[in-house]
Amino acid sequence: MVMKRYQVGFNNISAMLLLRRCHNLTRFGPLNTQRHLVAPAVTSCTVRLWSSGSSEDHRSYQRAHGPRWRHALAGLLAGTGAVLAYGLYHNKAEQADTVRVQPIEKTSALPIFTQEEVTSHRSLEDGVWVTYKGGVYDITEFVAMHPGGDKILLAAGGDLEPFWALYAVHNQEHVLEILSEYKVGELSAEDLKKQQTIESSDPYSSDPKRHPVLHINSLKPFNAEPPPEILGDSYITPSAIFFKRNHLPVPQVDPASYKLHVDGLPGESLTLSLEELKTRFPKHTITATLQCAGNRRSEMNKVKQVKGLNWGIAAISNATWSGAKLRDVLLAAGYRPDDAQWARHVQFEGLDKDVTGTTYGASIPLNKAISEEGDVLLAYEMNGEDLPADHGYPVRVVVPGTVGARNVKWLGKIIVSADESSSHWQQNDYKGFSPGTDWDTVDFKSAPAIQELPIQSAITTPADGAMVNRSNEEVTVKGYAWSGGGREVVRVDVSVDGGKTWQVAELKSSEKGQEPEPSPSPGRAWAWKLWEVTAPLPAEAQELEIVCKAVDNSYNMQPDTVSPIWNLRGVLSNAWHRVKVKIREDESEE
Amino acid sequence: MVMKRYQVGFNNISAMLLLRRCHNLTRFGPLNTQRHLVAPAVTSCTVRLWSSGSSEDHRSYQRAHGPRWRHALAGLLAGTGAVLAYGLYHNKAEQADTVRVQPIEKTSALPIFTQEEVTSHRSLEDGVWVTYKGGVYDITEFVAMHPGGDKILLAAGGDLEPFWALYAVHNQEHVLEILSEYKVGELSAEDLKKQQTIESSDPYSSDPKRHPVLHINSLKPFNAEPPPEILGDSYITPSAIFFKRNHLPVPQVDPASYKLHVDGLPGESLTLSLEELKTRFPKHTITATLQCAGNRRSEMNKVKQVKGLNWGIAAISNATWSGAKLRDVLLAAGYRPDDAQWARHVQFEGLDKDVTGTTYGASIPLNKAISEEGDVLLAYEMNGEDLPADHGYPVRVVVPGTVGARNVKWLGKIIVSADESSSHWQQNDYKGFSPGTDWDTVDFKSAPAIQELPIQSAITTPADGAMVNRSNEEVTVKGYAWSGGGREVVRVDVSVDGGKTWQVAELKSSEKGQEPEPSPSPGRAWAWKLWEVTAPLPAEAQELEIVCKAVDNSYNMQPDTVSPIWNLRGVLSNAWHRVKVKIREDESEE
Repeated sequence: MVMKRYQVGFNNISAMLLLRRCHNLTRFGPLNTQRHLVAPAVTSCTVRLWSSGSSEDHRSYQRAHGPRWRHALAGLLAGTGAVLAYGLYHNKAEQADTVRVQPIEKTSALPIFTQEEVTSHRSLEDGVWVTYKGGVYDITEFVAMHPGGDKILLAAGGDLEPFWALYAVHNQEHVLEILSEYKVGELSAEDLKKQQTIESSDPYSSDPKRHPVLHINSLKPFNAEPPPEILGDSYITPSAIFFKRNHLPVPQVDPASYKLHVDGLPGESLTLSLEELKTRFPKHTITATLQCAGNRRSEMNKVKQVKGLNWGIAAISNATWSGAKLRDVLLAAGYRPDDAQWARHVQFEGLDKDVTGTTYGASIPLNKAISEEGDVLLAYEMNGEDLPADHGYPVRVVVPGTVGARNVKWLGKIIVSADESSSHWQQNDYKGFSPGTDWDTVDFKSAPAIQELPIQSAITTPADGAMVNRSNEEVTVKGYAWSGGGREVVRVDVSVDGGKTWQVAELKSSEKGQEPEPSPSPGRAWAWKLWEVTAPLPAEAQELEIVCKAVDNSYNMQPDTVSPIWNLRGVLSNAWHRVKVKIREDESEE
Repeated sequence: MVMKRYQVGFNNISAMLLLRRCHNLTRFGPLNTQRHLVAPAVTSCTVRLWSSGSSEDHRSYQRAHGPRWRHALAGLLAGTGAVLAYGLYHNKAEQADTVRVQPIEKTSALPIFTQEEVTSHRSLEDGVWVTYKGGVYDITEFVAMHPGGDKILLAAGGDLEPFWALYAVHNQEHVLEILSEYKVGELSAEDLKKQQTIESSDPYSSDPKRHPVLHINSLKPFNAEPPPEILGDSYITPSAIFFKRNHLPVPQVDPASYKLHVDGLPGESLTLSLEELKTRFPKHTITATLQCAGNRRSEMNKVKQVKGLNWGIAAISNATWSGAKLRDVLLAAGYRPDDAQWARHVQFEGLDKDVTGTTYGASIPLNKAISEEGDVLLAYEMNGEDLPADHGYPVRVVVPGTVGARNVKWLGKIIVSADESSSHWQQNDYKGFSPGTDWDTVDFKSAPAIQELPIQSAITTPADGAMVNRSNEEVTVKGYAWSGGGREVVRVDVSVDGGKTWQVAELKSSEKGQEPEPSPSPGRAWAWKLWEVTAPLPAEAQELEIVCKAVDNSYNMQPDTVSPIWNLRGVLSNAWHRVKVKIREDESEE
C-alpha cells in the first residue's frame, strides 16, 4: 500500500521534472498513461540533456542550469518523505542511450578502484563517485537530475547504502537500473570488506512500535495520521494516535546521559541534564495543537501534483505538554534584554541525524522564544506522561501557535543567534509560494519560513462519500478548527449546500462532559476547538456538499477554494473543507 | 448626492426591517419597486404590529419582542452613519391606520403640556414623550421600530432637535411625517421659549474645512475617503486626504487647558497637560496604517444590503504618528506587572460627545496596551505636524495593527479596567457575524469586538470600468496591501483573468525613489505596502477581470468571494478585490 503510493508519486513527479526542463506541456493526464503521453513530447529535451558527453559541456550545462535546478530540487529527499523520479528517468535513459556519444560498456571487465581513489572524487569539478555493493559509479552527470537535490553530494566519495537505508524510497528496481548506467569499476575486495563491517543495518530498525490504526504516509521515515473520525472524537488526542511526522530515524536517547546544550549567548554555554531541566525550572503545562505545514496536502494534489507526503486532514492533533519554559532556560543561560540588539532567532538542533551527521534543525524568532506570553516549552511530558519516542523523548520544543516543523523533537542544542537556522528545512522547505510559481521560477529566499499558521478547519465526520439515511431527517457534522499565533477560533460556519447558506456550529474546548477550559488570554489560544452542528436534510437534495470554514479572533477567514492557494510544495492547504454525502432514500417498511 | 445616497439606504433598510419581523420574504428586488413588492406581503405583519392599541397589549409585545428587537437595532444611529427606515415606516403607517383601534385626531385642538409633564414620560413603562418645535409627541410605540435602536430613549422626556442636529439623517420629510403621527399636544409657550434659548445651533458648525477631493459618505458626522488612484499614489497618505471617520461632531479642544486623565489603577489618578505629555515621556514615531472596519463595505452591499456607511476601497490610509508610548504613561500612572492579575483592558474616552454627554469610547486588551512591542501611542503628531482637527487634535490613541475604531481621537480619558469599554461601539458595533446571522438572530455578545484586522488588499488603479488601449500591449496594476496585528504582507498575487492565473506583484514600502523602510521586526509590521505589477494584455480578451489577493507572514490569505463573508454590519470586507477593464481596439492609423 505504501509502496504503491510512492510508485504513483514517482510517475507524476518524474513527468513534472521533465516538463519543467522542456516547457512543452503544462499539464499531464492520469498516471497510467503518463509515460506514453510524455515520451514523444520530451525527446528533444532528453537529447539536449544527455548529449553533453564531455565534462566541459557538462560543466557549462551546470553553470547555465545547475544551480537553479539543484536549488529547485533541494529538499525533496530530506524534507518531504522523499519522492524520486526514477521511473521517468529510466524512460529517459532508454531513449537517451541511443544518442549518447559514448555509451558505457557494462559487460566488459571494469577496473578495480581503492576506496582512496573513490574518495578523491567528491565534487562536480573532480567528478562525483560513489560505491554501492562493491560497484564504483561516476554519477557526476546525475547530480543535477537528482530529485533530492544536492543532498546527493553528501554521499560523494563514499558508499550509497547508508543513505538509501535512511531514505527507503531508494529501494526500488528503477533506482538500481539508473545506477547501473553509471558503473565505472569495482571496489577493491579489501575496501569492500571494511565497508561491510562498518555499515550498520537498517537505521529504522529501532523505531518504536506504532498504533495499527494510523494511516501510514511514509514508513521510513515514519509519517502517519489517525483516521479523521477518531481524531475528531477526543479534544485531547491520545499520544498513540497523535499524528507522527519524522524526518529521520527515531534516535535512541539514554535519559541518564542526555545533555541539552544552550549556546550563542555571551559567556559560557549552559549544559543541562534531563534531571536539571526538570528540577531547576518551574514546570509549566499548556494545551497546544500541533499541525504539519502539509496537512490537507492531498487536496492540493487533486488540483495539480505537488511534492510532499500526501497528508489527509489529520496531520494535526492536540495534546497537553509539560516542561520548562524556554524563556526560563535562556535567562538561566545568561540571556539579557540587551541581547535583543543582536540576537534575532533561537535555533534548535535535534538528535535525529542522517548518516553524515546532519541533524534536523529549525529556528523561531527570538521574540517568540523569550516572550513571557509566547509559552514556548522544552517539554518532557505529553498528556501527563514521558514524551513517547516518536514525539521527541526525552525533550522536545513545543512552540505553540507555530508550524509543527519548528517544534524540534529529541532536542540536543539551542543556539541564540543573529540568523535563522541554516537547515534545509528552514531555508528551502516549509515556505509558501504563489500558485503561479513553479520549480523553474521559485526563489526560496523570496518567501519567509513558515512560523505561525493560518486559520484552519476540517470536517472529521461524516467522511467524504458517506451515506445518510433520509429517515434520519438530519445530519450531524463534526470537525476541528484552529489558528496559529495564539489566535482563538471564534466561529465555525457550516453549509450543507456547498456554501450557499450557512449555520454556526457549536464550539467545544474540552472533552465531552467536562467543563470547558477557561478562556485563554488574548494571543494565547494554543489549542484547537472541536465543533459540531446538526442540519436538517434538505427535502429535495440527493447529495449534500458539506462545507466548513472557521474564523479566528483577528477575523481571518479561510479561502474558498484550493486552486488559488496551490503552491509547489503543497503547504498551507486551508481552503474550505468539503465532503460530499449521499442521501439514501429508505425502503418503506410494510 | 449625499442625500440621494441616504435615500437609497432608507428604502432598502426599511424593507429589511419589516422583513425581519414578518419572515415572509428573504430577498428583495431593486429599490424603486420596493414598496410595491413589499406592501402586500407585509400586511398581516403590520396589522399585528399596529393593532396592539392598549398599553397592556403594547407591553406584552415589548416583553416578547422588544429587547431583542431593540438590541438588534442598537447602534445604527450612533455607530454607522445613521440609516433610518422612515420611508417604509410611512408606508406601513398608512396601512396601519386603517386597523388602528383609536386613531389619534391630528386636526383637533390638542392639550397643552408643561416641560415637567413631558419630562415625567421617559421610559417604556411611563411612556416615552418628546418635544419638537413646540409639539409634544408620545413615541412609546415607535421605540421598538427606531432604526437607531434604543438610543432614541436618550431623548425621552426632552427635545428632539439637538439629536436631530447631531444626526443629520433625520432632516428628511419622511421623518417629520412619521413624527406627526404621534402628536399628543403642545408644549407651553413659556417652556418652549426656554428651550429655544438653551438649544444650540448646528453642532457641526465648527467642524474643520476639508479637502474637496474627498468622496463624502456622510456629512454629519463627517465621513469621507480619498479617490483610490490618489490614495495609491503615496506611501504616506497626506493628512488632508487621509480617510475621515467621525462618529460625532469634531470637538474644539484648547491645547492650553487640555487634560488627559489616567484612571483605574490603584492610588491617585494621573492627569497630564499636553505639555507634560510631550515633555515627560520619550517621543516615539511609527508608521502605521489605519483602516475602518467598514472599508469596502460597498462590495457587501452589492450582495445584500447591510447597515453602515457605503465605503469604497479607500477607508484606509497610512501615516507617521509621533507621541508618547501608552506603556510609558501607564507605568507613570502606577501600573505594575501585578495589575495584570485583575486588569484586562484599557478603555479610552474621546472628548467628542453627543447631546447627552455620552462620549465616544472603545477599549483594547491590556497586553496590547502594555507590551513594549505593542507600540500603542498617545499621538500628538501626524506626518510630522500637530494632529489635524479631524484626526484627534490635540491627542489621539494610535493602536497599530488594530481596527480604526479603537484608535480613539480627541482623547480625554484612559481607564485601566477588568472590563471592556461598555460603549455601544465596543459592545454592539464593530463585530463580525456569520453570513447566516440576521437581525432577528444576532446575539451581539456571541462575537468578540474587532481588534486586529485580517489580511486586506485592493486595486487602486485601474478603476473598475476603465479602458485600456490594445496598442499599450500591457496593463499596469497598482494597489495596497495590509494586515492587522503587525503581520507583514509578504506577497500580493495579481490575476488579469479573473483568478485563473497569477503573477506576483512588486511590493513597495516607501515613497517612489526613496529607500525602503527597514524591515520591521516580527509582529510589528504596522504599515501597509503598496504594490505594482505589469501584465501583458491577453491577445484574445476584450475585457480583463483584474483580481488581487495578499498574503501576510502568518500566511493568512483573503477569501475568494464576498457572499460567504457577508455580515449584517458589512464589516471585515476583505475578499479578493476585482475590477473589470475593457480593452479598446485602437483605430488603425493610415
